Amino acid sequence: MSGEPIPNDMDAVVLTAYEGPGSLRVQRRPVPKPGKDEVLVKVAASPINPSDLAALHGRYGFKPNPPFVPGGEGSGTVVAVGPGPMGRYFEGSRVACLWDGKRDGAWAQYMVASVKGGVLPLHDSVSLEQGATSVINPLTASAFIEIAKKGDHDAIVLTAAASSLGRMINRRAPREGVEVINVVRSGAEEELLRKQDASIVLDSTDPDFDEALRDACHEHDAHLAFDAVAGPMTTRLLRALPSGGKVTVYSALSFEAPQIAPDQLIFEGKSVDGFWLGPFMQSKNLLQLMLMWRRAQRLLPSDLKSDIRANVPLAEGPSAVEAYVREMTGGKFLLRPNG
Amino acid sequence: MSGEPIPNDMDAVVLTAYEGPGSLRVQRRPVPKPGKDEVLVKVAASPINPSDLAALHGRYGFKPNPPFVPGGEGSGTVVAVGPGPMGRYFEGSRVACLWDGKRDGAWAQYMVASVKGGVLPLHDSVSLEQGATSVINPLTASAFIEIAKKGDHDAIVLTAAASSLGRMINRRAPREGVEVINVVRSGAEEELLRKQDASIVLDSTDPDFDEALRDACHEHDAHLAFDAVAGPMTTRLLRALPSGGKVTVYSALSFEAPQIAPDQLIFEGKSVDGFWLGPFMQSKNLLQLMLMWRRAQRLLPSDLKSDIRANVPLAEGPSAVEAYVREMTGGKFLLRPNG
Repeated sequence: MSGEPIPNDMDAVVLTAYEGPGSLRVQRRPVPKPGKDEVLVKVAASPINPSDLAALHGRYGFKPNPPFVPGGEGSGTVVAVGPGPMGRYFEGSRVACLWDGKRDGAWAQYMVASVKGGVLPLHDSVSLEQGATSVINPLTASAFIEIAKKGDHDAIVLTAAASSLGRMINRRAPREGVEVINVVRSGAEEELLRKQDASIVLDSTDPDFDEALRDACHEHDAHLAFDAVAGPMTTRLLRALPSGGKVTVYSALSFEAPQIAPDQLIFEGKSVDGFWLGPFMQSKNLLQLMLMWRRAQRLLPSDLKSDIRANVPLAEGPSAVEAYVREMTGGKFLLRPNG
Repeated sequence: MSGEPIPNDMDAVVLTAYEGPGSLRVQRRPVPKPGKDEVLVKVAASPINPSDLAALHGRYGFKPNPPFVPGGEGSGTVVAVGPGPMGRYFEGSRVACLWDGKRDGAWAQYMVASVKGGVLPLHDSVSLEQGATSVINPLTASAFIEIAKKGDHDAIVLTAAASSLGRMINRRAPREGVEVINVVRSGAEEELLRKQDASIVLDSTDPDFDEALRDACHEHDAHLAFDAVAGPMTTRLLRALPSGGKVTVYSALSFEAPQIAPDQLIFEGKSVDGFWLGPFMQSKNLLQLMLMWRRAQRLLPSDLKSDIRANVPLAEGPSAVEAYVREMTGGKFLLRPNG
């Protein structure tokens, strides 16, 4: 394989301890070597996602020992491949890549990704900037809509609904016949969603929120809620849903454990489970995954678009993370490790 | 229909307020009249079950306004039928009957039961004493084993395992290829189960209980727990189960709401739901239900046997309930409303 030479060292944002954004440092690290069935990607762009924040606190599904490089997804070009037949297929390709917790993440100039689900080829029509946010939110949005449709749900409840993911779902779900009951936590977030034509938006800080949510769930026959908040919000959702309703928790922005009233489980037939994108994708065969990925890529400029707040050089990564923590709505920060 | 005349009034145990066993009184009440698709049963015997105790505190799925007659199940003879074609089928029959919350329960000389799932004919080989405890525990045991087998579970976890229900499941499940990991809360309960050949019995008051439970669940590949305790026990069960495990709560002896860690739901793929016998039975068609009922009746003298601690006249019902609360293991108290 030709092209520019690969350096020995690189810049990376490194988490030095599980103490949140304050433990991030920009450091020189050796460029990792791709092993069997792995590729080396020169990273073009990588976003700061809510799941990254969880990882900085040791509250994500992957918990490598610090120091390590976080960054759940990114885009770039495959500049080297390890042994194994599958890597060759990606050689020189523009790809989206996904952190699997076994190697370092995407907040670095280079990252190693596994050809077994960790690297997805980008269509020619998709820019590297679009590709950087093409996996986690777009495929989660697609998954939620797929789950809702498979379960014959005409309506779902969504918390943290003004998030990037929430706005994607609000653009896409109605076109697929799934109505969205949105839960936000401020008037500003409500306005953001209403501007986007969301028709049902409830503010959880309103004194009559629980009653309004209950009414909306019953009126629209919503039996499924996707919850990014956890803690008391999960409990409130479960109470609001009709008998047989289910809350699927996919993030825990509150960092709290919900209390689940046994009578809701026993006598109301309600249930609580979880969603994580990785296992969901692994549950699909290659053809199903590729169809889902092609479809998501086609929708990246429209329904599954991510708003970008700012492009940020790697050196400013730690302060961008802190800015994101202070204000999570308003578009993604995109780290640009190679300028 | 001939036979002895039906009196106007009867003795009944009445709950006067949702304040537990202390609010029970023995009173004279009018004998209820069967309506459409209902039958009047002269009650021979009715047990005191854990679900009855929940009902006395307003913590059951049915919550009629006090005063009302509790008693979740009983046996007796159909002495009158209301209008509708189905009632005739039961005329004069020996039956088991089930409280549906719409009319009064079984702790009385007479009770009205619905022919739509509230009354089940007893086989000639089943005595009225056996019939009194033939529905709630035997069908719940059958349901748990059916659920385990349908989900390909070779092993299940069971809390409050020394209960009447727990002992039934311990006798029956191994014969159907389902191993039971028993959780009890005292050495005496452990001994009770071991005498019955239960091989895996863990005492939740042991300091190394959580580790032992985790080891047992992983060793026996147990992904499903049936929990009668709720509260912290549900949380401990969920942590002990391998990834993908589920806790099904069917009672809340602790009267507490479990806290469910979001990471268990999201990253471990675990879930929590509930079980209630009524909806489970309603989910079956008549043929399925009758097959299940026939099978359970055949096993009443053996695997699905209830131990009877004492036969109690109705006048002593309230004090028997208090005695049962003090010591729930050791067999059922059986109320005998007609002597």
